[in-house]
Amino acid sequence: MKHEGEGVGGGADALRVAVIGTGRMGSDHVRRLDRVISGARVSAVIDVDGGRAERIADGVPGCTAYTDAAAAMDAGDVNAVLIASPGPAHEAALLAAFARDLPVLCEKPLTPGAESALRVMEAEVKLGHRRAQVGFMRRYDTEYLQLKALLDGGGLGRALMLHCRHRNVATPPGFTEAMMINDSVVHEIDATRWLLGQEITAVSVVKPAPSSAAPDGLSDPQLVLLETSGGALADVEVFVNCGFGYQVQCEAVGERGSARLGDAHGLYVNAAGRWGGAVAQDYVDRFREAYDREVQHWVDAARRGVTEGPSVWDGYAAAAVCEAGVRAQTSGARTEVTLTARPPMYG
Amino acid sequence: MKHEGEGVGGGADALRVAVIGTGRMGSDHVRRLDRVISGARVSAVIDVDGGRAERIADGVPGCTAYTDAAAAMDAGDVNAVLIASPGPAHEAALLAAFARDLPVLCEKPLTPGAESALRVMEAEVKLGHRRAQVGFMRRYDTEYLQLKALLDGGGLGRALMLHCRHRNVATPPGFTEAMMINDSVVHEIDATRWLLGQEITAVSVVKPAPSSAAPDGLSDPQLVLLETSGGALADVEVFVNCGFGYQVQCEAVGERGSARLGDAHGLYVNAAGRWGGAVAQDYVDRFREAYDREVQHWVDAARRGVTEGPSVWDGYAAAAVCEAGVRAQTSGARTEVTLTARPPMYG
Amino acid sequence: MKHEGEGVGGGADALRVAVIGTGRMGSDHVRRLDRVISGARVSAVIDVDGGRAERIADGVPGCTAYTDAAAAMDAGDVNAVLIASPGPAHEAALLAAFARDLPVLCEKPLTPGAESALRVMEAEVKLGHRRAQVGFMRRYDTEYLQLKALLDGGGLGRALMLHCRHRNVATPPGFTEAMMINDSVVHEIDATRWLLGQEITAVSVVKPAPSSAAPDGLSDPQLVLLETSGGALADVEVFVNCGFGYQVQCEAVGERGSARLGDAHGLYVNAAGRWGGAVAQDYVDRFREAYDREVQHWVDAARRGVTEGPSVWDGYAAAAVCEAGVRAQTSGARTEVTLTARPPMYG
Amino acid sequence: MKHEGEGVGGGADALRVAVIGTGRMGSDHVRRLDRVISGARVSAVIDVDGGRAERIADGVPGCTAYTDAAAAMDAGDVNAVLIASPGPAHEAALLAAFARDLPVLCEKPLTPGAESALRVMEAEVKLGHRRAQVGFMRRYDTEYLQLKALLDGGGLGRALMLHCRHRNVATPPGFTEAMMINDSVVHEIDATRWLLGQEITAVSVVKPAPSSAAPDGLSDPQLVLLETSGGALADVEVFVNCGFGYQVQCEAVGERGSARLGDAHGLYVNAAGRWGGAVAQDYVDRFREAYDREVQHWVDAARRGVTEGPSVWDGYAAAAVCEAGVRAQTSGARTEVTLTARPPMYG
Repeated sequence: MKHEGEGVGGGADALRVAVIGTGRMGSDHVRRLDRVISGARVSAVIDVDGGRAERIADGVPGCTAYTDAAAAMDAGDVNAVLIASPGPAHEAALLAAFARDLPVLCEKPLTPGAESALRVMEAEVKLGHRRAQVGFMRRYDTEYLQLKALLDGGGLGRALMLHCRHRNVATPPGFTEAMMINDSVVHEIDATRWLLGQEITAVSVVKPAPSSAAPDGLSDPQLVLLETSGGALADVEVFVNCGFGYQVQCEAVGERGSARLGDAHGLYVNAAGRWGGAVAQDYVDRFREAYDREVQHWVDAARRGVTEGPSVWDGYAAAAVCEAGVRAQTSGARTEVTLTARPPMYG
Repeated sequence: MKHEGEGVGGGADALRVAVIGTGRMGSDHVRRLDRVISGARVSAVIDVDGGRAERIADGVPGCTAYTDAAAAMDAGDVNAVLIASPGPAHEAALLAAFARDLPVLCEKPLTPGAESALRVMEAEVKLGHRRAQVGFMRRYDTEYLQLKALLDGGGLGRALMLHCRHRNVATPPGFTEAMMINDSVVHEIDATRWLLGQEITAVSVVKPAPSSAAPDGLSDPQLVLLETSGGALADVEVFVNCGFGYQVQCEAVGERGSARLGDAHGLYVNAAGRWGGAVAQDYVDRFREAYDREVQHWVDAARRGVTEGPSVWDGYAAAAVCEAGVRAQTSGARTEVTLTARPPMYG
Repeated sequence: MKHEGEGVGGGADALRVAVIGTGRMGSDHVRRLDRVISGARVSAVIDVDGGRAERIADGVPGCTAYTDAAAAMDAGDVNAVLIASPGPAHEAALLAAFARDLPVLCEKPLTPGAESALRVMEAEVKLGHRRAQVGFMRRYDTEYLQLKALLDGGGLGRALMLHCRHRNVATPPGFTEAMMINDSVVHEIDATRWLLGQEITAVSVVKPAPSSAAPDGLSDPQLVLLETSGGALADVEVFVNCGFGYQVQCEAVGERGSARLGDAHGLYVNAAGRWGGAVAQDYVDRFREAYDREVQHWVDAARRGVTEGPSVWDGYAAAAVCEAGVRAQTSGARTEVTLTARPPMYG
Repeated sequence: MKHEGEGVGGGADALRVAVIGTGRMGSDHVRRLDRVISGARVSAVIDVDGGRAERIADGVPGCTAYTDAAAAMDAGDVNAVLIASPGPAHEAALLAAFARDLPVLCEKPLTPGAESALRVMEAEVKLGHRRAQVGFMRRYDTEYLQLKALLDGGGLGRALMLHCRHRNVATPPGFTEAMMINDSVVHEIDATRWLLGQEITAVSVVKPAPSSAAPDGLSDPQLVLLETSGGALADVEVFVNCGFGYQVQCEAVGERGSARLGDAHGLYVNAAGRWGGAVAQDYVDRFREAYDREVQHWVDAARRGVTEGPSVWDGYAAAAVCEAGVRAQTSGARTEVTLTARPPMYG
């Protein structure tokens, strides 16, 4: 809640965060750190488009604009890094932060592929302690947390199946089939791993005839099947041009019951012959509080000198499953996932 | 609503129905025809267990017990047949009814396999007009009818996917994996064909690690994937030992929206720290009115001299898909369905 | 399900019903008895508009048209009476039926006032046994029955309050404020008495500024407060020009929990940025099955020689409460209800 | 997110808040300001129980304990005041804060009665600008905000009625009937004024026979009727020993539709024959985010040098309605509310 002319805020001991990337996600994180999160402030913004970085920095007291991430990290006023640049830039930024032992919050994907993710993991293992949290923010959503607690507490018995829906109103130009896996289903991949505490061992993709609302070349929707190390099965409807709203749902089916998250709620209206309410239109509507909680958790941990939350291992495993998923999408065949051995550091 | 000592009811022109089979389903149909349905009465009950048939007949005015279906059909007081005997007995009963040109309501399955179903179809085609209605009673459920109307009216655009759940509390002794397809999923097979107006062209079955509530040898639950001639995809969770209730749900995903049926409803209670209500415990709870509507529709049509509703073709197609499903269940492989040419009589 | 040319149906022992009144409700009951109800047929229809009666009778096999109810009752082919004429005609029809000891189903109101209801009750008491069932069909609705069972079973503890909503889309021309009580709230009056097993002892009416959708002279909506002999309190929103649908809801608040009936259900649709479904548009949508169940119950009992369901006492008590309600509506003051002693015949 | 040993946080320009009262609400606000709210820190806590104040202050970096509010306000490190002491102490604290021109967030009630509230209002009017925000935090709840927007936008037409429920699990020892109005219904009083933009002109209270769960001397539940200057009518069920949970609901009925807030939501579970979920057990469960949003709004405004949100006028009006409500509760009669003229400063 700092405002121009009020001087630098956030407290002498506030986390001083360099935000890399000032696109939609990056600038939203700048706003969040500046106005919502307790105990942090934005001391640097970095964008290869220097003018854009300047414009963002101008609105934030005590914030300097950079075009180079390493330069920003070397500035005295930075002691933490939030990476919200495009995926291909993540590896370099992560390695630079590790080199300086700075805590990082890295938007998903950790990196665009398993191989680069592995390099990042090796660097962090070499560092000897966790320094990066990956932005799988579903883990911070109230209903996901309730479902996790219910499953962990045994309330449904052992989980057997997950039925997931991931629907977006429409895709922007240039959206590809691989992005349905890498940008959308990646969330269900992480949620499946996290909810069940199991790795994903195989992926299959089944495609119905596409919607006429799908752009040319995009077979939308698709049904993605995930098999896990514990023998559970998750099916994910991914439909990125569903037209009516942004909708994320998950039903866990256990031995003794089932539980569903993501039903629309809020105001219930009777009017014009209909009952019901509004469907969220984008992820901000749906997950605003999860993002706030995620960043606050990262800030709190960083100020205590530790890094928690989704790990580089989680980022790597998701990347490996996504790669298998994209192959399955192309081949039509069930595709197994092979992971490297899990370093002890990741429990 | 006829009662002992009140004489034979149902009207001089009432349909006089011979009910074959007096197990749970048969005796429920006897009750329904006797007490709920308008314009029909039960004039004969047939069971190989003659004592059982007698006991049922004793409770119904003007009803005679038989152990032989043909003998009952030849009695003067029978002009319609309801088949509720075990599946293997259906073919003979259907052929006997066709031979006498009697309208038949045949509980599903039409017959236990595609080959016998084909013989039944040939006999009816030879007869030259429809005489059998198959007991796919989902088509008479209010919410299924609403979904059908919504899809047919274009309210969701073209249907792309169906997500179906079919859950039973527990299985009786002797329940086999094949019965998960033949007795349970057969309803979703018919519902998919009917809702979409398309044939099913391939079946796959994926099995997670079974529930510890599943009897030995039963891999329960399973996910069955149905592909249709129009390129739609239906996934069916079949879970016959879910423990918590009888639950049938279906979400149709179209180009412009989705619609779900089967949410629990009824009284909404706040008590003991919980909100919610009771889950139906069996198909009678869930589908009583659909059964009533189905039988009434058959009686009404029969009294007008016609047969409508799900046809022998529908019974045959379902049998062919079930056969492919059972093969897919065993092999683990996607299995195509091949149907004979559709006789013009089935439009 | 009888059709022209098929002869007289319904069984030799079927109840042969004279339906008095062929307006919306009467002709719907003719259809119901003719096509839905088991064990009954319509043998006579009576309307002062003889042409109208003829047209209705023409569509029903074995049915004769009359303009005089007593003449119809004296015809050989009548052994039961369903009264669906306007309220002022009820008393004479009831007394005529009692004089012939015929079972009667009388649409609500029993009579238009407590005084005439009392005369009807005296006639039935003199007869010495119940012969009239009053058409309070809420008692036959599934959710009301569930709520009654929950309350009677002690699931909520003692009932303390009822919150009721009674909403209609719009009123026909000529609808008066008194009709808000006599035609609409009368259902909540009976439901309150029946659910709680208590008499209503006082009525108050509070009127907010009327909706601009209300016709001139109609203060719509209103809040009606009912106090009961057991100290419970029911509030009823009656809003007969709510515009959006026909909606009847009731929440019972007990010592240990609450339960609500009347939430809209059925197909749940996501489309055009909204989730939800359709609100019923009239009482036929909402209560069709309750009407069927009510008439079937009456027919079944009549064929066993008895009369059950809501009694003349219930009709009288409702009339007395309505009279107090209309006085309260006019005076703005809390108005006590005084009932005569309950004849032992009504238990 | 400051932790021991990390020094004083919150930023050089952070609001430095003195929190008066360290009971349940006060200590929760200390935690909130310390760990959740951006741009503020707790520099002082005040409690007449000095030991208690010390214990709280010990857990907060840079926070000093006081037993005297004025002394704390005079300390250099305080530039804002949050009042969470018992109601009788509010007037003095408010006047002390006004004397120092400090922004105040005062938990409801503003003061325990209309007369003292009037004195506070006069003091603020004399100051010439708003300095106090009253803790009516319903105005910060997402669903209330949605309902307010719907009403203001004309989506329901003019509002005619509100149906409100306010249920608590159980009352602590010493809870009185007057507290049902002053502590519970006061929220619905403010919400009614705010949602409708109208003053409340009369109050009536109707009491059913009390629940056997109600402590001796507490007639619980009650129905409170509020009439507004625009002719709308709000009914409020207040039931402070409902046993099953904490539940706040409000349905607004407008000329063209109705809208309800407060339906339970979150995870939807099928298990043990039931569908549904958990009811919130206290106001923290239900309104946590509303409290966060309220305090953040106050902090943000204070740092901009202004005071917004519910005003002293709102606090006074609520106090006047509460007084009438308590009189109505005792007398059983409809009781009019008389307000002083609204100072222009309060718009």
